[in-house]
Amino acid sequence: MLIIGELINTSRKAISKAVEERDAEYIKDIARQQVEAGANYIDVNAGTRVHDEAECLKWLVETVQEEIDMPLCIDSPSAEALKVGLEAHQNGQPMINSITDEKERYDEVLPLVLEYDAKIIALCMNDDGMPDTGQERLDIAKNLTDNMKNAGVKEENIFLDPLVKPVSVNTDFGNEVLDAIEMIHQEYDKVHTTCGLSNVSYGLPNRHLLNRAFLVMCMAKGMDSVILDPLDKKIMSLLIASNTLIGNDDFCMNYLKAQRAGKLEK
Amino acid sequence: MLIIGELINTSRKAISKAVEERDAEYIKDIARQQVEAGANYIDVNAGTRVHDEAECLKWLVETVQEEIDMPLCIDSPSAEALKVGLEAHQNGQPMINSITDEKERYDEVLPLVLEYDAKIIALCMNDDGMPDTGQERLDIAKNLTDNMKNAGVKEENIFLDPLVKPVSVNTDFGNEVLDAIEMIHQEYDKVHTTCGLSNVSYGLPNRHLLNRAFLVMCMAKGMDSVILDPLDKKIMSLLIASNTLIGNDDFCMNYLKAQRAGKLEK
Repeated sequence: MLIIGELINTSRKAISKAVEERDAEYIKDIARQQVEAGANYIDVNAGTRVHDEAECLKWLVETVQEEIDMPLCIDSPSAEALKVGLEAHQNGQPMINSITDEKERYDEVLPLVLEYDAKIIALCMNDDGMPDTGQERLDIAKNLTDNMKNAGVKEENIFLDPLVKPVSVNTDFGNEVLDAIEMIHQEYDKVHTTCGLSNVSYGLPNRHLLNRAFLVMCMAKGMDSVILDPLDKKIMSLLIASNTLIGNDDFCMNYLKAQRAGKLEK
Repeated sequence: MLIIGELINTSRKAISKAVEERDAEYIKDIARQQVEAGANYIDVNAGTRVHDEAECLKWLVETVQEEIDMPLCIDSPSAEALKVGLEAHQNGQPMINSITDEKERYDEVLPLVLEYDAKIIALCMNDDGMPDTGQERLDIAKNLTDNMKNAGVKEENIFLDPLVKPVSVNTDFGNEVLDAIEMIHQEYDKVHTTCGLSNVSYGLPNRHLLNRAFLVMCMAKGMDSVILDPLDKKIMSLLIASNTLIGNDDFCMNYLKAQRAGKLEK
């Protein structure tokens, strides 16, 4: 299970303030805490900085790298900002968040994936908008995967995000994503799936409960990466337990280690 | 999701004492609490009473029925004890826990299923022992289902239990059960699946965490019944959330109601 820590995002008030004030210590602290909690990639996103996104993203990449050796997930819809972030990246293989099957965005981001030999999060949406059914998600996933493979992207660098939509809008939306995850893994051996969970609970109370249940369900269907808050002990406990239950934990050693370290919720 | 409340079992010390002392109020209290927490069936088991199991089971059935209108799940490996319990049952359609594909047990329990038009929990084991793989579970499940259907048992009254074994013994054992659940539901339209969760965590610390993660995974694969402690707020919160996520909760009303009633863990 590849864990992408989501906390360094200027849409969060404390991060926005830290970026505004160039408070490097605060950013480093959040980065380090996420790594200690189990994150494999640290997402950095300055998308709310309309006028200086690229500059802020560059500062975030540099600042985080002063603290940790883990690679970063450079997160922006703007190819220009992505490029500046990628140029500053030095911690091994970067991840790009994200490409889509929208023609303009695809054409702009693909060259960056190739140039930086990056892992790439590919959102299952295209110029027709966001998909409803599992089959629509699979169709977009196949188009994205096949085109990227033909362009030279290795299958194992592709992380398909089926796009999670709220069950409060349509009670089928959870199942459609679960089906998509299963179908994608049936179709491709080495492609990964990932998602941000929180959209699933939009409009409902007690969202964290729904989000963590949905993570476990997605893992049962084969999802092997996720974007989340690794400092949330409850969701991380379920993630670690789920990894053990689906056979991704030889001799249950990771589970036992987490238990001994006090990382698991009772 | 059909919930079978597991608490009235003489293997639990407090229940054993209450049965010994014929403390009807204690038993009634546990029965009522389970119903209030969402149980659809109340399991009664006096299996540790080697010399007077049938008599104790009869007393339990009568006592529980004085308090609640919910049907009971009569739980014994002994056909003789089952028969006495079933004769005392008056709250609608009883459930029998359990039949297996072991020849002697099958031949003894099947007539009771037919005579009492009972729902029947069918454990995926036979005279060769307990299965290892998902395919072995499916083979036994098919044999049990086809034979019971031919004998006149309605498909919708069959609850197949794939038999959960500890991931501490073999890290594949979780996946084998998950695969079996999915294959059973692909094979049969109306057959249900159920299981007791706790074997999955045998030999590991912090077992409740593994058990509740495994419940959510089983639900993602289609399991539509479970035997558990409905007074455990953490597992019930995940169960209710999971039901909402897989589209078994119109307009999310059950989730919202549970949240308003304070039943959901934060």
